[in-house]
Amino acid sequence: MTPEPKIAPCLSLEFCQAPSSFETMNEDYASCLSGSRTKEMGNIVLSDPKKRNALSLAMLKSLQSDLLHEAESKDLKVIIISAEGPVFSSGHDLKELTDEQSPDYHAEVFQTCSEVMMLIQNHPVPVIAMVNGLATAAGCQLVASCDIAVASDKSSFATPGVNIGLFCSTPAVALGRTVPRKVALEMLFTGEPISAQEALLHGLLSKVVPEEQLEEETMRIAKKIASLSRPVVSLGKATFYKQLPQDLRTAYYLTSQTMVDNVALRDGQEGIKAFIQKRKPIWSQ
Amino acid sequence: MTPEPKIAPCLSLEFCQAPSSFETMNEDYASCLSGSRTKEMGNIVLSDPKKRNALSLAMLKSLQSDLLHEAESKDLKVIIISAEGPVFSSGHDLKELTDEQSPDYHAEVFQTCSEVMMLIQNHPVPVIAMVNGLATAAGCQLVASCDIAVASDKSSFATPGVNIGLFCSTPAVALGRTVPRKVALEMLFTGEPISAQEALLHGLLSKVVPEEQLEEETMRIAKKIASLSRPVVSLGKATFYKQLPQDLRTAYYLTSQTMVDNVALRDGQEGIKAFIQKRKPIWSQ
Amino acid sequence: MTPEPKIAPCLSLEFCQAPSSFETMNEDYASCLSGSRTKEMGNIVLSDPKKRNALSLAMLKSLQSDLLHEAESKDLKVIIISAEGPVFSSGHDLKELTDEQSPDYHAEVFQTCSEVMMLIQNHPVPVIAMVNGLATAAGCQLVASCDIAVASDKSSFATPGVNIGLFCSTPAVALGRTVPRKVALEMLFTGEPISAQEALLHGLLSKVVPEEQLEEETMRIAKKIASLSRPVVSLGKATFYKQLPQDLRTAYYLTSQTMVDNVALRDGQEGIKAFIQKRKPIWSQ
Repeated sequence: MTPEPKIAPCLSLEFCQAPSSFETMNEDYASCLSGSRTKEMGNIVLSDPKKRNALSLAMLKSLQSDLLHEAESKDLKVIIISAEGPVFSSGHDLKELTDEQSPDYHAEVFQTCSEVMMLIQNHPVPVIAMVNGLATAAGCQLVASCDIAVASDKSSFATPGVNIGLFCSTPAVALGRTVPRKVALEMLFTGEPISAQEALLHGLLSKVVPEEQLEEETMRIAKKIASLSRPVVSLGKATFYKQLPQDLRTAYYLTSQTMVDNVALRDGQEGIKAFIQKRKPIWSQ
Repeated sequence: MTPEPKIAPCLSLEFCQAPSSFETMNEDYASCLSGSRTKEMGNIVLSDPKKRNALSLAMLKSLQSDLLHEAESKDLKVIIISAEGPVFSSGHDLKELTDEQSPDYHAEVFQTCSEVMMLIQNHPVPVIAMVNGLATAAGCQLVASCDIAVASDKSSFATPGVNIGLFCSTPAVALGRTVPRKVALEMLFTGEPISAQEALLHGLLSKVVPEEQLEEETMRIAKKIASLSRPVVSLGKATFYKQLPQDLRTAYYLTSQTMVDNVALRDGQEGIKAFIQKRKPIWSQ
Repeated sequence: MTPEPKIAPCLSLEFCQAPSSFETMNEDYASCLSGSRTKEMGNIVLSDPKKRNALSLAMLKSLQSDLLHEAESKDLKVIIISAEGPVFSSGHDLKELTDEQSPDYHAEVFQTCSEVMMLIQNHPVPVIAMVNGLATAAGCQLVASCDIAVASDKSSFATPGVNIGLFCSTPAVALGRTVPRKVALEMLFTGEPISAQEALLHGLLSKVVPEEQLEEETMRIAKKIASLSRPVVSLGKATFYKQLPQDLRTAYYLTSQTMVDNVALRDGQEGIKAFIQKRKPIWSQ
């Protein structure tokens, strides 16, 4: 299935070619950014750098629609969210939050944003944030909400809403679940940024690399995930988030059953047999 | 409103002058420690260094009373808890825990201590621990219970109750919610101290600075918070702790509503308009 | 009480002599590995290095039986789990997970494994993992499930199940409760190992030391725990895990009661009195 090109006002979605080898990765990935596509990797680029990739309601709805669209593609194995320009995303569009708009409109903005963040966790494939620059407020929340986050060492992260009288309470949901609470609260109360290295130290990021290696490292991880069985990864991702808030006994009850189901999957048996037979597995998807 | 000076046996509460500029901060803050006051910053100093600032029942009740008193001051924006002498606090006064006192008395000690720790989280303004020395047992718990903790690099932290046959089970509540459980359990089972750098690494502290910069850095953070809208910060703090233990959907439901309420606050609209108009906001409080 | 020697197919359990002094620790510990024993320290050695210490169903049942057996010994104060050979444990035995075995058999494997992991947390004495090499899948889960984990700097940790079509969903229960979720998910989605230093940074380990200091450091911690009151440590451990998932008020309610009970213990009073009288406490156990 080849998905139709889609036009969003400030968001570009592309399916990029998995590079054929590690050596040629940067070139291949560069070309994918200009429009090549494949069924395995979805590439969502926030592409409104003039507005610092603000998460306007239109942007959020495009993001939601694209994520939902991709969830239906049974071939897709991984999604990368990146951004054009020096700001990954500056968060909500403040012009949508003045009293010229109704409280109902404000509610729609925050609810749509929350739905997008939850959709990333509920998505059947892993979602990777590739960050090269400043991510603030809901932009920081977007990074915190992805399953994996890779950033260049020039990136930084902040929740500066207090400076404009708007405490980052929704970003705090994602932030408070990824970094220690003392780190989260200092960010929320002062609005000051933390560096990529601090973000890594405290759990907001999975990896930090020099800017020139950002695409290569992100693609290396994405390519690895794209080489795996989609049903196995999807089952594992869903179970991970399901068990995490449970008490230990419930978590083990849930996951023991998942393991039995996983073993019974065609790809579970194929993987185990391939390992025992010392050959490469051939996945169903 | 100028609060009345209060006399507590082993605890001094002062409202200190926000320094007028960054450059003169150390001098101003030093003078505030000797008694100057302002409506914006509350300064609670554990001042019983001869008893290693033990959290006796009298000390705990003073702390509780002061925190409650300050919560009523609508002008107050931030509280700093610090200590005189080389020990921040050594925890409970062991003489209150012998069998010369009744189990009911022991229960009052631990319940009062727990109430103080919860009061810090439930307080309408951020509470910062400024630590310059050793914090052990309930003293370590006090640091862990503050919203933000800044410490000098000579500080250290321990839960050594096991050495005297009294496992630090109440300190473990705060410790276990700020550091990884393997770090917490090693501290609890061995009683050995961790350094300020380790405490930072593991999430017990927000910042570590050289001793000579401790007051400056703490005041910088406090001054920043004092420059913000109190209703916005209070709403944000209360919501943060409310959403943290919830499942993701409930957390987003709660916080989306908080965001709508925040936008509707006078200070929410003022902040957004000031930002759009590129001017400094004027807060209601 | 001198426990009977037990023969397990691929697991050796020994009670080792607490070394009489720090200086002679390595020698004493080395000899304990070859069979000396004491009532205070239990030493469980995964000793099937040819099979990379795979956690076969037989191995898991031996581990469960030994842990249960030791729990009955009122003299035991600490358990160390270590392994022979360069691999701490490679996780489940894949030959037990093919479709030549029934789903009921697979379920027994995962349920037994989960029971062992929960038993470690529910055990009355602290359990220390001493890791010198690679710990993968359920082997990594075993490390994550111990109360304290000490590793040599050559150790590494991975959850590589995705490579063979078997997502590490049960290991993810323990891993997701010890490291930040972004670290856990990158490990789970890519299968790639993290170093001992990264594991320490992210909370999977309590300590990392050079290989030649591993036994000394582990024994130092174990000896410290063995010098404490067993009833006090057991009460503290049980309470720690009980309060951790509770809301703050419930956690403080539980632990305040525990503190009152702890003070009332013979060893609680003995410890406090010894401290006030500046003498060494004499524990009941």
